[in-house]
Amino acid sequence: MSPELPGRETLIAAYRLTRDRSVTDCASLPVEDYALQAEAFVSPPKWHLAHTSWFFETFLLKPFTPGYRPLNERYEALFNSYYNGIGEPYPRDRRGLLSRPTLEQVLAYRQHVDAAMLDLLAVAHERAEDIAQRTILGIEHERQHQELMFTDIKYSLAANPLYPAFTDSPWASEGPVRALRWDHFAGGLVTMGFGGAGFCFDNELPEHRVFLPPFELADRLVSNGEYQAFVHDGGYARPELWLADGWAQRQQAGWEGPQHWLDRDGQALEYTLNGLRPRDPNRPVCHLSGYEADAFARWSGVRLPTEGEWEYAARELGGPPRGRDTRALLHPPAPASAQDRQYYGACWQWTQSAYSAYPGFRPAPGAIGEYNGKFMSNQWVLRGGSCVTWSSQARPSYRNFFYPRDRWQFSGLRLAR
Amino acid sequence: MSPELPGRETLIAAYRLTRDRSVTDCASLPVEDYALQAEAFVSPPKWHLAHTSWFFETFLLKPFTPGYRPLNERYEALFNSYYNGIGEPYPRDRRGLLSRPTLEQVLAYRQHVDAAMLDLLAVAHERAEDIAQRTILGIEHERQHQELMFTDIKYSLAANPLYPAFTDSPWASEGPVRALRWDHFAGGLVTMGFGGAGFCFDNELPEHRVFLPPFELADRLVSNGEYQAFVHDGGYARPELWLADGWAQRQQAGWEGPQHWLDRDGQALEYTLNGLRPRDPNRPVCHLSGYEADAFARWSGVRLPTEGEWEYAARELGGPPRGRDTRALLHPPAPASAQDRQYYGACWQWTQSAYSAYPGFRPAPGAIGEYNGKFMSNQWVLRGGSCVTWSSQARPSYRNFFYPRDRWQFSGLRLAR
Amino acid sequence: MSPELPGRETLIAAYRLTRDRSVTDCASLPVEDYALQAEAFVSPPKWHLAHTSWFFETFLLKPFTPGYRPLNERYEALFNSYYNGIGEPYPRDRRGLLSRPTLEQVLAYRQHVDAAMLDLLAVAHERAEDIAQRTILGIEHERQHQELMFTDIKYSLAANPLYPAFTDSPWASEGPVRALRWDHFAGGLVTMGFGGAGFCFDNELPEHRVFLPPFELADRLVSNGEYQAFVHDGGYARPELWLADGWAQRQQAGWEGPQHWLDRDGQALEYTLNGLRPRDPNRPVCHLSGYEADAFARWSGVRLPTEGEWEYAARELGGPPRGRDTRALLHPPAPASAQDRQYYGACWQWTQSAYSAYPGFRPAPGAIGEYNGKFMSNQWVLRGGSCVTWSSQARPSYRNFFYPRDRWQFSGLRLAR
Amino acid sequence: MSPELPGRETLIAAYRLTRDRSVTDCASLPVEDYALQAEAFVSPPKWHLAHTSWFFETFLLKPFTPGYRPLNERYEALFNSYYNGIGEPYPRDRRGLLSRPTLEQVLAYRQHVDAAMLDLLAVAHERAEDIAQRTILGIEHERQHQELMFTDIKYSLAANPLYPAFTDSPWASEGPVRALRWDHFAGGLVTMGFGGAGFCFDNELPEHRVFLPPFELADRLVSNGEYQAFVHDGGYARPELWLADGWAQRQQAGWEGPQHWLDRDGQALEYTLNGLRPRDPNRPVCHLSGYEADAFARWSGVRLPTEGEWEYAARELGGPPRGRDTRALLHPPAPASAQDRQYYGACWQWTQSAYSAYPGFRPAPGAIGEYNGKFMSNQWVLRGGSCVTWSSQARPSYRNFFYPRDRWQFSGLRLAR
Repeated sequence: MSPELPGRETLIAAYRLTRDRSVTDCASLPVEDYALQAEAFVSPPKWHLAHTSWFFETFLLKPFTPGYRPLNERYEALFNSYYNGIGEPYPRDRRGLLSRPTLEQVLAYRQHVDAAMLDLLAVAHERAEDIAQRTILGIEHERQHQELMFTDIKYSLAANPLYPAFTDSPWASEGPVRALRWDHFAGGLVTMGFGGAGFCFDNELPEHRVFLPPFELADRLVSNGEYQAFVHDGGYARPELWLADGWAQRQQAGWEGPQHWLDRDGQALEYTLNGLRPRDPNRPVCHLSGYEADAFARWSGVRLPTEGEWEYAARELGGPPRGRDTRALLHPPAPASAQDRQYYGACWQWTQSAYSAYPGFRPAPGAIGEYNGKFMSNQWVLRGGSCVTWSSQARPSYRNFFYPRDRWQFSGLRLAR
Repeated sequence: MSPELPGRETLIAAYRLTRDRSVTDCASLPVEDYALQAEAFVSPPKWHLAHTSWFFETFLLKPFTPGYRPLNERYEALFNSYYNGIGEPYPRDRRGLLSRPTLEQVLAYRQHVDAAMLDLLAVAHERAEDIAQRTILGIEHERQHQELMFTDIKYSLAANPLYPAFTDSPWASEGPVRALRWDHFAGGLVTMGFGGAGFCFDNELPEHRVFLPPFELADRLVSNGEYQAFVHDGGYARPELWLADGWAQRQQAGWEGPQHWLDRDGQALEYTLNGLRPRDPNRPVCHLSGYEADAFARWSGVRLPTEGEWEYAARELGGPPRGRDTRALLHPPAPASAQDRQYYGACWQWTQSAYSAYPGFRPAPGAIGEYNGKFMSNQWVLRGGSCVTWSSQARPSYRNFFYPRDRWQFSGLRLAR
Repeated sequence: MSPELPGRETLIAAYRLTRDRSVTDCASLPVEDYALQAEAFVSPPKWHLAHTSWFFETFLLKPFTPGYRPLNERYEALFNSYYNGIGEPYPRDRRGLLSRPTLEQVLAYRQHVDAAMLDLLAVAHERAEDIAQRTILGIEHERQHQELMFTDIKYSLAANPLYPAFTDSPWASEGPVRALRWDHFAGGLVTMGFGGAGFCFDNELPEHRVFLPPFELADRLVSNGEYQAFVHDGGYARPELWLADGWAQRQQAGWEGPQHWLDRDGQALEYTLNGLRPRDPNRPVCHLSGYEADAFARWSGVRLPTEGEWEYAARELGGPPRGRDTRALLHPPAPASAQDRQYYGACWQWTQSAYSAYPGFRPAPGAIGEYNGKFMSNQWVLRGGSCVTWSSQARPSYRNFFYPRDRWQFSGLRLAR
Repeated sequence: MSPELPGRETLIAAYRLTRDRSVTDCASLPVEDYALQAEAFVSPPKWHLAHTSWFFETFLLKPFTPGYRPLNERYEALFNSYYNGIGEPYPRDRRGLLSRPTLEQVLAYRQHVDAAMLDLLAVAHERAEDIAQRTILGIEHERQHQELMFTDIKYSLAANPLYPAFTDSPWASEGPVRALRWDHFAGGLVTMGFGGAGFCFDNELPEHRVFLPPFELADRLVSNGEYQAFVHDGGYARPELWLADGWAQRQQAGWEGPQHWLDRDGQALEYTLNGLRPRDPNRPVCHLSGYEADAFARWSGVRLPTEGEWEYAARELGGPPRGRDTRALLHPPAPASAQDRQYYGACWQWTQSAYSAYPGFRPAPGAIGEYNGKFMSNQWVLRGGSCVTWSSQARPSYRNFFYPRDRWQFSGLRLAR
């Protein structure tokens, strides 16, 4: 969405790098796991592999490559996620039923799309600028899906009483977390939204001014140990700590602790992508819903930050964006140092801000305009980035959004007051 | 919540006036209607009559009148709406099953409470200020329930295929509505929230500053005729005009037009508190969900106002607050004159703002703090006031809030850009 | 359905007696109770009063009285229970929403129908035989609804935490119930179904032969005390005692004992039409589902009777049919004497027989043929009659039927082996 | 359950044959299909492969092989179908989520069990008779699951818009079906139930007498062409043809024709295990619910047979039992000749009989007694056998049972009068 576009070689390299990683990320899974979908809101790995290809096929190859022949015309509906402008999507809650196309066929679909995409990118084209912009969008889109692949498969594998591990990478407990301190910010009439060069999503635009009263943010995320104290203090049995909708959700779902926490035979465990592990009190609490984050903050006598506060603070103190750069790290770590404020690289951080349009927001025309704008109701903004976010997407202005009841992401919290 | 309290006589007069009106408002109903509850989100008239009494009993008589004897101890749970601090409320969706206490018993309950309240207010008390503040809150609370009584009974009677009328007051069609014009506002760093003397709800506080870019608001509400054009243009069949959650809701509920619209034998009808009536193209469209209001605005190429914009404009051009002052008017009228901008007295107006806390918001301590704060998620703010709102509640800073799917209130829209 | 028809005076007397009793049966209720419907499977008293009138209007006045003018044409759909042949019935689960017509209007509807019916019955008519047959059916239909009125209002009042009483008739505990003995029956090729003079329902026909191996039936019903022992023995926690569907239902509904049993503050109570009462160990257990009856029998090492067995035994030992003849008795009594085998007058008795057509069964032509036949799947037969059954309906061949999960009738059990 | 037991070699041969066929039956499927479960009532192929092994492990190896070591102790709960006596089964509707154990691991589990079973059967044992009886039960159980594997995978593959084929065996349309004639039977006091030597299930016992009035049965099954005429005549829009529960089910599920019928672009298609095929008017109609079979019979002016009638007729005219003996035939054929009455080898045939215990029925003690008896409510009996039934299970007394709403089996109908 920015006028400053990368050169052809850079673009092709980013395309290859991203496309390859989708495949290698889940290469250790047995075929059976590729179709696994434990709830409607998660998608099977195979579907992610196909849908990200569909995106390039639909928004680049079909409009820009004359004579492009799809591998299978039925894939248009099968792998459409939610773009009503493209036709009736296949029902989201039934993606796990797509045993066919098989994994092998989906990998062939990827190769078919990649070959055509590389052809398209390799030569001059009168609409090269549009192509580049959309290719970048497709790359960023695929990186978002890579993150989802990790959280979705984590959720789905956790439904298996055998609690299979995704990875056998090394796992170690962390040293004691430091005492929490507060960073002070003066606020005032400040600028918010994306204003630099390079790519951003439409929902980060336009840059605009907001007025912030003075505020303070915690200098690290809330830890498992701190959250455990909330649980021990009856946090899940005291409605006065919860938003009304949050309490109703807790009652209906029977929540007694964060997603993936498990107490068995007196042991405090946590399901991780490394399998069941002792719950580490020093790591950040994660897999919280927005309601739980809000209740914890209320119990602590403080509150969640607004997204304006978070963004402002991140520019000041957030440090360089950081994300998942190797597959080794698939769980949020404790702060790496006394200076590590955990703005990026550990957990997404719930804000109290409802996801809505910035003043003057305009979605792109056509089906691609359905990317972000139509979700601007009932969701809350999360900021930062998690251990499985690409560092290219960890930036001050990036807006992640989920329903406040959602908790299968690596979502934790930072306190504000 | 304001320090400036009315004198004793004024307070007693307001108490009497408000309490009496609850009874007279529904005096024309047959006994059978008093227990009617067509969906969980509406309450029977009898329940409103009892719950508003419960409020005075719970928050005033029990704490401040030593030796107060409740008429029936079971009423504490039966008529608690949602205050978890008071104990487990009777389930909301089963209020229509309370054939007992009978209407006669509920009216006796009201008299029991009124007698004790008038005793309490009549004499000096060391906590007279607290008592006055809570009494005012109870009065304002009862006025809110009077408005709900009208919209709830309207919804419930509409479930009867006989479409009974609530009132036989005169009904006339309105002359042609004037062409819509735009009022321009410069915006800037402006003040928002309640700042005057007298009563306001906690959610209107604290007064604070926000930054508004320049904007324009329509100089009247959208009319039935204009909304009909949206329907004719396929507004309910074009997902690209809707928020994703709104479209899902439309699909699931099968909406084809606003609540209470009805097409029968080629006639465009509307269910009103006067019974079925021809749909008047000049009156404001009402009984819209927030999703429908948003879709209409999108179809019109513009948008909904934010609550900051609305409040700022209302101070400039809204004119004196106006509400229901007689029972005669139970349906939103067309603009009364070329100057009538319809900020008050016709329909609540959906904003695009999610309902949330103002910076520095603090709910009251104890159960009474559950009044507003715990609903600050997933709802949208409506501003203004409708034909059945008390004029004492029609003010620039008043914040009404409902889920964006709700449409049984007199809720319409004003366009912004 | 029998050729032997009563004389005109007898018929008119039966009509008057039955119609009057519908009104007097619920005359002590406050108006509010008349519209009460706590679940879809029960109907409000007002609806029973209207629907029984609708039956005469639809099947007698409209076809046989030329120029008959309905009081209100909308009642045809409103008060149709399930006759698809008459048009789309008003949804069953929304009968409680019909605050209008008011009770007064429904009573006027009854008078309107009664006047026309008495005119029709008073004079000669070329189709007098059809008229007499249908009038008898209408009378028997209304007597069935009188029984339902008692069990429906009992269920609905029990949903009120105040547990209101329907009647203040005297209540006394019963003396010790005698030890259970077994009556032996030789069986063989026996005759089943209605074969005498007078009225029967179509589902009792045709008379036919069945082969019964020798069997034994208990000489009285199972008592509350005996059922309590089953509960104490973990009857509601041992799936091996239950049919698979029964166990699923128990789990889903959270059953821990019969409908209307209540343990509070260490007291064993039962909700009765006299209000909450100590649970009398000597009275028959009632308000059982078929699943619970079956599980109790299995726990006892025996089984439920088949309907063939029951009918055969009732002819031998059942004694004269007996039912509700006064309003005084609204709860099943213990056996009145050592000879009282409780075939009639206390509880309906679950059999293990699925409700199905007798060989050669033919429903009546037209909508009236929907009376019984279309329900012949998934339901179980109950035999006998309860404390609120008319004695005219307590006969060996009468077949009552409910889903095995239903338990709001006065339904108990008699053991077989 | 019969005293006459096969010799050791025969038993081992039957064991091997049956076990091998489970694996070869689905050998052509890609790995992805093995975990497919489109609804709670179907199971994935992998689960069938595991559960049938679990049966031998639980009921033979654990009790009879001292020191038997399970491959994985968690499988006891994972692959328990419904035996509460063995512990809490894994939820049925989540079997499709068991991506682990993988297919490879499940095949290893089968080999582990087979090795131990062949050891157990190979040597003398003091409880050899019990072992032989249970082994036979296990074999018959596995044959039942093989039939389910075909119908389950058919249902699940049909949920894929690509309509994949299970087999590429040859497919041909059938010649014109002959006109239907009626076979007459005198009835009387006849014997019913299993009375011969060899194996039967407990629900076929004891042999007992029933009285049958004279009746007639159609000499072949109803064809697709005949059923199509019912559809064309508005069969799915006329409630008077349906049982009340059947009509409610039709409305709720939106049925417009049998399961697996599909009309697309003017073509009458049917999904088969060979993929989508033109609907052959001469083949028997199948994948009917009991409700549809009943409605068709009612429309035809006749009725469904009772199970007593069917069994009696099958002994007279049914010919030799016949079933699936090769994998070639995976769809019901038209009658092979003028003499072919289609009692076996084409479709299961709905009866009007509710599934219940024969007089004197006693389930086996312990968990194995849960095999049949606990399902004796709400289901209907089907008789005969389908194209995928083992011929060893196609016998006059065999009782299949499903809910009347179920239609994913090869279930058709034969008319009676």
